[in-house]
Amino acid sequence: MSQFSFEDIQKAEAALRPYLPETPLVQSYYLGDKAHKFFFKLESMQHTKSFKIRGALNKMLSLTEEERKRGVAAVSSGNHGISVSYGAQLLGIERAEIVVPETTPHSKIEKIEYFGGHVRPMGKNYDEAHAMGMQFIEESGLTFIDSCHNDPKIYGGQGTAMVEILRRNPDIDTVVVPIGGGGLATGTAVAAKALKPEIKVIAVQTAACPAMIHAYRDNVCYEEYPTTGETICDALVGGVGVLAYETLKDYADLILEVSEEAIRRAVVFLLEKEKIVAEGAGAIAAAAVLEHPEIFAGRNTALIVSGSNIDGELLRRLQAEF
Amino acid sequence: MSQFSFEDIQKAEAALRPYLPETPLVQSYYLGDKAHKFFFKLESMQHTKSFKIRGALNKMLSLTEEERKRGVAAVSSGNHGISVSYGAQLLGIERAEIVVPETTPHSKIEKIEYFGGHVRPMGKNYDEAHAMGMQFIEESGLTFIDSCHNDPKIYGGQGTAMVEILRRNPDIDTVVVPIGGGGLATGTAVAAKALKPEIKVIAVQTAACPAMIHAYRDNVCYEEYPTTGETICDALVGGVGVLAYETLKDYADLILEVSEEAIRRAVVFLLEKEKIVAEGAGAIAAAAVLEHPEIFAGRNTALIVSGSNIDGELLRRLQAEF
Repeated sequence: MSQFSFEDIQKAEAALRPYLPETPLVQSYYLGDKAHKFFFKLESMQHTKSFKIRGALNKMLSLTEEERKRGVAAVSSGNHGISVSYGAQLLGIERAEIVVPETTPHSKIEKIEYFGGHVRPMGKNYDEAHAMGMQFIEESGLTFIDSCHNDPKIYGGQGTAMVEILRRNPDIDTVVVPIGGGGLATGTAVAAKALKPEIKVIAVQTAACPAMIHAYRDNVCYEEYPTTGETICDALVGGVGVLAYETLKDYADLILEVSEEAIRRAVVFLLEKEKIVAEGAGAIAAAAVLEHPEIFAGRNTALIVSGSNIDGELLRRLQAEF
Repeated sequence: MSQFSFEDIQKAEAALRPYLPETPLVQSYYLGDKAHKFFFKLESMQHTKSFKIRGALNKMLSLTEEERKRGVAAVSSGNHGISVSYGAQLLGIERAEIVVPETTPHSKIEKIEYFGGHVRPMGKNYDEAHAMGMQFIEESGLTFIDSCHNDPKIYGGQGTAMVEILRRNPDIDTVVVPIGGGGLATGTAVAAKALKPEIKVIAVQTAACPAMIHAYRDNVCYEEYPTTGETICDALVGGVGVLAYETLKDYADLILEVSEEAIRRAVVFLLEKEKIVAEGAGAIAAAAVLEHPEIFAGRNTALIVSGSNIDGELLRRLQAEF
């Protein structure tokens, strides 16, 4: 029995509503036809450019006055770090420490600092940063904002995008959602099935890091997982969260592996055809449609575009490829 | 005394609300600071990828049953043509004839046809297409949907974006809006001053075709105007509408010329930094900020991103430049 339920999402939805404007759900120009339609849920247009603000902010909203005064911390150089920094600013939490590996590029540090968070480089890679960061966080009395591993407050926040999708378009009968740590996929799946039990939930992973697919195959929750081969999906590498591993199998109808080639192509397709900027992880749902169009015949599908924090240089390289 | 007033916009706003979802107003990451903020009004995210659907649809909603049955027509290979095609489909108007010059590229024809409009190539350039098209439209008994020259229904529709801006963020005290034919600029200016008399309205034109600036300088309404030099702003070339010429001077605080170089730079800035796809005309408001930052000191400015119908090849060329 999972510790996470639709009630967590409903509570998050009510808590977040005053803070986060609803993101757009826009119909695709180029995918589908009259008999089957595709809609993009643009989490890429959150102020932080990714869905991660939903979970991070929901967690911070649940803290006591005392906890807020002591401050918050995260270990992440990516979208989660940016979101904790921004969420703290929104709520007037003065101290937000974002632990990142010492190798983090300046462009990422800049984004975290933009929202007022304090960047604290530690260790040579993510694992070292995590180990050293957790010790620092404990010693400093800060509240750790976990990116996805075990916190129903985080998962509850991530699930609210799906609530918006079905409120905006109740005819959606299929949703495609990326799996990284699994917070967004799990929140989405639980919300979708609670609101519309017959909906089809398709969770997708990059072939460069199919941690959840292998976890279910091997009956092992891989909390760490190696990347095999190059990937443009920074947000989809590493292992999966325990709560996601325990929950998602009962809610997802299909877990699909998508090739990096399709993801790269989808980034350029979204940009040049649909006029949507997406990072690799943000394009994986569209990539699933490009690679497996037969799955979507006759359906009304929502594709979650999870984020748009893609580097300009990478974008140019991908455009040159296709 | 102008024949166009805020009442036209209010009526349009009520008429359009069931058909067009509100477009996002998102805060800039990279422009401004704590003391002065910038917000992008993303008309680029209309389903037709430009604001033009507002005016076109408002006009079509005002037609009688009989007129709808006979059908509608437009002369435009650009955003207005796409909008009339889409608007007709939305309202179940079966016949929508879009007259375009014979030289129109296939990619533009495809977009018009996508929404069910019938493309009718005529003449070697826009002026010929217009002359031949108007005769055809009259003979066919179709209702002509004017893109901007004289119709308060069109101007009324275009003004509704500004109503959304101030409803979403009443603290906006400055708005920057592109002038092509002048429908959007005039609608925006009239709505802005009606809702908030102290607001500063800055209308901008490309230096490659400063028709309105020269019209006011010369006291002549230039309904046709030549382009001087290369421009990436397809939507901002040609002359101005009579109604715009008569109205805008009483409502705009400043009409500013913006260089093509700044516009090209702004397209790449919006794409790679703000993660917003904009066509040339859509980027001109941001270009005005890059070129004249001093104007915006201490203000809360809305920048109208009028459209995103930019060709993938052009986008790549611009990225390679900066």
